[in-house]
Amino acid sequence: MPASDFLDVKRDGGLTHVIDKGLGPRAWEDVLETSGDYIDIVKLGWGTAYVTPNLQRKLDVLKDKPVVIGGTFFEAVYAQGKLDEYKRWLGELGMTHVEISDGVVDLPRERKLELIADFARDFTVLSEVGSKDAEAVFAPYQWVEWIKGELEAGAWKVITEGREGGTAGIYRPTGEMRTGLVDEIAHEVDVADLLFEAPSKASQAWFVKHFGPGVNLGNIPPDEVIPLETLRLGLRADTLREVLLGDAEPAAS
Amino acid sequence: MPASDFLDVKRDGGLTHVIDKGLGPRAWEDVLETSGDYIDIVKLGWGTAYVTPNLQRKLDVLKDKPVVIGGTFFEAVYAQGKLDEYKRWLGELGMTHVEISDGVVDLPRERKLELIADFARDFTVLSEVGSKDAEAVFAPYQWVEWIKGELEAGAWKVITEGREGGTAGIYRPTGEMRTGLVDEIAHEVDVADLLFEAPSKASQAWFVKHFGPGVNLGNIPPDEVIPLETLRLGLRADTLREVLLGDAEPAAS
Amino acid sequence: MPASDFLDVKRDGGLTHVIDKGLGPRAWEDVLETSGDYIDIVKLGWGTAYVTPNLQRKLDVLKDKPVVIGGTFFEAVYAQGKLDEYKRWLGELGMTHVEISDGVVDLPRERKLELIADFARDFTVLSEVGSKDAEAVFAPYQWVEWIKGELEAGAWKVITEGREGGTAGIYRPTGEMRTGLVDEIAHEVDVADLLFEAPSKASQAWFVKHFGPGVNLGNIPPDEVIPLETLRLGLRADTLREVLLGDAEPAAS
Repeated sequence: MPASDFLDVKRDGGLTHVIDKGLGPRAWEDVLETSGDYIDIVKLGWGTAYVTPNLQRKLDVLKDKPVVIGGTFFEAVYAQGKLDEYKRWLGELGMTHVEISDGVVDLPRERKLELIADFARDFTVLSEVGSKDAEAVFAPYQWVEWIKGELEAGAWKVITEGREGGTAGIYRPTGEMRTGLVDEIAHEVDVADLLFEAPSKASQAWFVKHFGPGVNLGNIPPDEVIPLETLRLGLRADTLREVLLGDAEPAAS
Repeated sequence: MPASDFLDVKRDGGLTHVIDKGLGPRAWEDVLETSGDYIDIVKLGWGTAYVTPNLQRKLDVLKDKPVVIGGTFFEAVYAQGKLDEYKRWLGELGMTHVEISDGVVDLPRERKLELIADFARDFTVLSEVGSKDAEAVFAPYQWVEWIKGELEAGAWKVITEGREGGTAGIYRPTGEMRTGLVDEIAHEVDVADLLFEAPSKASQAWFVKHFGPGVNLGNIPPDEVIPLETLRLGLRADTLREVLLGDAEPAAS
Repeated sequence: MPASDFLDVKRDGGLTHVIDKGLGPRAWEDVLETSGDYIDIVKLGWGTAYVTPNLQRKLDVLKDKPVVIGGTFFEAVYAQGKLDEYKRWLGELGMTHVEISDGVVDLPRERKLELIADFARDFTVLSEVGSKDAEAVFAPYQWVEWIKGELEAGAWKVITEGREGGTAGIYRPTGEMRTGLVDEIAHEVDVADLLFEAPSKASQAWFVKHFGPGVNLGNIPPDEVIPLETLRLGLRADTLREVLLGDAEPAAS
């Protein structure tokens, strides 16, 4: 789908999961026309969908893409005991995907797995692991156990927490990545089942160099979709040597 | 005005003051359609209005919102002795609000109060206190004295300086908030008379948790209006516990 | 072209070179309507043009501005030995400008000068000096030698590397500017022949205060064109004293 094709570039799979925090319909028309070829799923971040007055018009513009409401909204719904109302609303909106997380509220692990299994009967479930609290640090074996459990319960992909800014979960509060944690997770879980939140260029480049252009990346801002595609293809300085020139092999995954 | 209403969320007042640094008319149509319900006033930052060739068309798009030109432009006008010309221009543009500040130029306090009183005869005046010089640090009692004086002179709201980036005035050059200063101001002045510049998510969340969802916040970028609304309602991780679940009471104000 | 003209402001020349990383055609219509008077050239950053499916429509919107594809794409083309194909593509797109750089790939100096001379027969050449590798630090005399050589070879302007984020070349990895380097370059080369990459407000303000409002600045994000124009005119706090009030003379250049 590039404008031309005289270069030798490769791309095999790799989901690009975009985070929206309130773009209007004209902006989305523009993003889809320019970057739509490279967008696999759109997340309406946390509770933004709930306060968007023209939500239906926005969904109409996005009708060719799976749209999912952010996990924090699920947590608000759960905390207020409104799961049935939420499901009804998702049905009215025509949503096919849902995100289930426990980054803020206390949700017992068994209950989370039950809810994943329950929602998975009607929706494609993205579940998320990792706390939004930047101070909360968990051992890699726990992450692995959680991820495996959620995949078994029926999650389509498991998202590794990063927040919109890349400051929690698989990132340190400074934005630096917990690379050891990521490596341990990837050692135990098929990378194709994971969706790594990677809001910054540095983290995106790291994942592309480490796991190859086909890695699933999430929380990509709409105006970073084209730049990410160039990172995947080696057409940006950050990955040109590794991807386009093959100066270093991506780590096996 | 949310898209649905099955959650128990509350919102009582609280101005959202948006800073524009040069958006075009199509972008503003989009912002208003998606976020207009949550925008109370639009500031055309510093001297941007003066160099915008299609200013009238932009104001036509914004006709249902009060629009105000940034205080730095007032300071440029004052420094060049063009106050009458400025008033005439504001009249031609149909502006009902004006911002009066002394963050850069030397404006004797008495003269500032006179100008506030003078402009207040024809305009709704937002005055601003605090220097744009990140090195200039003033004692809390001085802030309080300035704010009280400007309210008495006729200011509708007094803005506490933060700059577009949150790096001066009530913020340290690192972006960290001077929370002791804010508390001392709020102890002496009705918070409803204040408009806190809060360009970053961290500062917005702090104000919402500290003073409650109804706090007046300024210098909000247009694409952060929907995210701020979710912070006010507790539908984002940063305030979910405090606002939606009531885990901590906002400080009395 | 300002909306009004009652202030005494001056502006003499100074190119504003804008970086695009994937805006859609509606957004560009908006930017051009609001900021087009202040845009001299548009760069489609690194390899973004190659992956933009609606590139021709985008170029149609930009038809009144010179458009140039980023140097990193030239480097990818060079590395794959596709220079003829690249020239042909540029011809098909109707491009009149080209950027030639060696920030990532190894391109012997003599070959770079030959390529500049070669492309200069058919295109207006912007060449770029400085590595994209933040760790690569070169002595000022080397920069000067490179710049002079590239101008002699036929470059219209030489760009001093800064990257999209201002973290390499004339900047330290922290974003701080290498002011001594810039001064040494400006001592030896006519500033009018240089285009300084200055993506941040702090760097733009520094250049305007140091070389005056007519300095050529590059990698300006589209939404920073109006703000930059106010910096050039002294209508923003960062340059008001120096430019509008003349409190300090710009350094001779």
